[in-house]
Amino acid sequence: MLPQSLAEAEALDRDDPLRRFRDRFALPEGLIYLDGNSLGPLPRATPDRIAEVATREWGERLIRSWNEAGWWEAPVRIGDKIARLIGADDGEVVATDSTSVNLYKLVVAAAALKPGAILIENDNFPTDGYVVQQAARLTGRECRMVSGDALEAAIDDSVSVVVATQVNYRTAARLDIAALEDGAARVGARIVWDLSHSIGAVPLDLPRDGATLAVGCGYKYLNGGPGAPAWLYVARDLQDRLTSPIAGWWGHADPFGFASDYRAAGGIRRFLAGTQPMLSLLALESGVDLFLEAEMAEVWAKSVRLFDLFAARIEATCPELTILSPRDPAKRGSHIALGHPQAYGIVQALIDRGVIGDYRAPDIARFGLTPLTLGHADVWRACETLSTVMREQSWADPRYASRNSVT
Amino acid sequence: MLPQSLAEAEALDRDDPLRRFRDRFALPEGLIYLDGNSLGPLPRATPDRIAEVATREWGERLIRSWNEAGWWEAPVRIGDKIARLIGADDGEVVATDSTSVNLYKLVVAAAALKPGAILIENDNFPTDGYVVQQAARLTGRECRMVSGDALEAAIDDSVSVVVATQVNYRTAARLDIAALEDGAARVGARIVWDLSHSIGAVPLDLPRDGATLAVGCGYKYLNGGPGAPAWLYVARDLQDRLTSPIAGWWGHADPFGFASDYRAAGGIRRFLAGTQPMLSLLALESGVDLFLEAEMAEVWAKSVRLFDLFAARIEATCPELTILSPRDPAKRGSHIALGHPQAYGIVQALIDRGVIGDYRAPDIARFGLTPLTLGHADVWRACETLSTVMREQSWADPRYASRNSVT
Repeated sequence: MLPQSLAEAEALDRDDPLRRFRDRFALPEGLIYLDGNSLGPLPRATPDRIAEVATREWGERLIRSWNEAGWWEAPVRIGDKIARLIGADDGEVVATDSTSVNLYKLVVAAAALKPGAILIENDNFPTDGYVVQQAARLTGRECRMVSGDALEAAIDDSVSVVVATQVNYRTAARLDIAALEDGAARVGARIVWDLSHSIGAVPLDLPRDGATLAVGCGYKYLNGGPGAPAWLYVARDLQDRLTSPIAGWWGHADPFGFASDYRAAGGIRRFLAGTQPMLSLLALESGVDLFLEAEMAEVWAKSVRLFDLFAARIEATCPELTILSPRDPAKRGSHIALGHPQAYGIVQALIDRGVIGDYRAPDIARFGLTPLTLGHADVWRACETLSTVMREQSWADPRYASRNSVT
Repeated sequence: MLPQSLAEAEALDRDDPLRRFRDRFALPEGLIYLDGNSLGPLPRATPDRIAEVATREWGERLIRSWNEAGWWEAPVRIGDKIARLIGADDGEVVATDSTSVNLYKLVVAAAALKPGAILIENDNFPTDGYVVQQAARLTGRECRMVSGDALEAAIDDSVSVVVATQVNYRTAARLDIAALEDGAARVGARIVWDLSHSIGAVPLDLPRDGATLAVGCGYKYLNGGPGAPAWLYVARDLQDRLTSPIAGWWGHADPFGFASDYRAAGGIRRFLAGTQPMLSLLALESGVDLFLEAEMAEVWAKSVRLFDLFAARIEATCPELTILSPRDPAKRGSHIALGHPQAYGIVQALIDRGVIGDYRAPDIARFGLTPLTLGHADVWRACETLSTVMREQSWADPRYASRNSVT
């Protein structure tokens, strides 16, 4: 039963089992932050952890911290923690590099398993398409781009690798991993999943669904900090059959042997290349540690309630906005996309009123529903502000004419 | 005239124009840190800067900091600062990714300019060889490995790309960039320089010497912090002729247009791929800013004096150690390598006595001479400790039997 008033929304928040997480984040007073799907907010523990890394581990212990402080092991250690959020095992995930670089590694490595085209849905976050286009050129493969709807039908014998984003970054539409993996298995193709908008947002069990390759982001729902290192997953059985195109000493079987010939490490380490940025990587660990304290089932259940409340309020108060995200929870992620020709101005007007969402060209206002930090009352208030912006046509303010925003 | 006593060394330090830099670093009292060529020490300004990035920019301003705080521009802005240390211009360097990933990008991009083998000296830091071996396999090129001495002669018509480390990570032997570039120019080959052990260590003027492609590290002499992002340099004239194999939205001509087709940005931005780790990247900027306050000519002049003093003290007090680094300053970098079959135990015994250097298999003790933080008296004292370790054969301590150190 959805709350019918701000008071009812507040009552729901008082009984929320995830309520305790709100104070673990350092969100500014008075701000309603609906952009945790782009940059997750700062966990309160993170500044102290970073200060410890800088002042004590780096400043005092210096080079010794590579061993003593576990820096060298961090990509694998943090990978093991991330693995729990996707149903994977220890040794199947590493935290390293950027999502783009990791996607490149897995696409090129997987393409070597089978001749054929590389297939990608054209409504991925564009960087995925760019990575795949270049990887296809380099490996002499055809690059085919199709819409998400057409993806399943396009996976045929002539396809080697498929790149698919499970949760669409604009609409939040969610693909069915198991169904697509079934299709890929029938033709011997491999799917590389981009889970940037999935991890920490929707329940995931990659082994159950037959997924063997995935990459994802650390700075969205995992709250790892701006540009936090990304991660990659390779199912254990597949690891030693794949060779990363980007070799490097961190992926060598004997990194301190300093042998001149490359010999890939067994297991997931072979997908590491160079030295990792420890301040950013260990900040990511703080975010992941905090996330692991929550039950993913509770997170998802709350996401569904927040979405339903948001959608109901929009329908009740902002009829000129189109809800672009799927209404069936099984078919969406944890954000809501609203369509309007003035979406850019709407988002800017909201930001000026303390409600932060983001704009996606050409006509989408996007709002992340992050259950660890948002309450039902936040959603209620955000929709009230949105309704005011629409009623007053605040989006028409000439200050919002320029579209040079980076958000 | 080299100091002949600790008192004379201290007198020289009192007149040292770089003396003021020592207090800008947070080195622990009583420690002599001769490993700034592996992990540069913590600049005092860095923890405050990182705290500001975390608490204010990320925590309070959140997503808005991509614009407001200059995060989006950081790779190019910091690249412009690094450019000054290699004689390059604004827009010729970006700070991004790891050295391994950057080397991969430039080797693959440069190989597309000309058919032929990829040539690498086999005494590079091994990761360079690993990167090149994999890149050669992927692009169907022959990979030739030769010794540094044989490199110049091996650059013939059949070579497409050469990868060379200017300053050898073990011996500090320095290659002559201009001479090798002359040879490469004659056959139309491109050299990708690894300047990880050069930048901030020796004077560099890449345009003068004809160098057009380089990569390097941010966490050694630039004091950027553990695993700080690396950088890459592409001479302006060459930029638009090269295509990075790893595409991504940060390297797109219109990153926020979200077009589905990849169109590389003009200029150096095309070598960016994914989102960069801001905490680590902005810590690097603190290190680079501090370095830019020093005159490189003064840094190098002091490096030469520190080396000569180190070498003289070793010759006077530790005859059983072999000085492996070139004595001619024009032929070396800013560290000194000593050979001894018990090098591992020697380095461990020194660490236990507060003198931090590092060990490189199988028989090298390596000591970085970083003029911003080290004085002549530090070198004198380090050599006294080393002489005691050698006299007492402290390296034979059974605690030093294991060689599992990460340093």
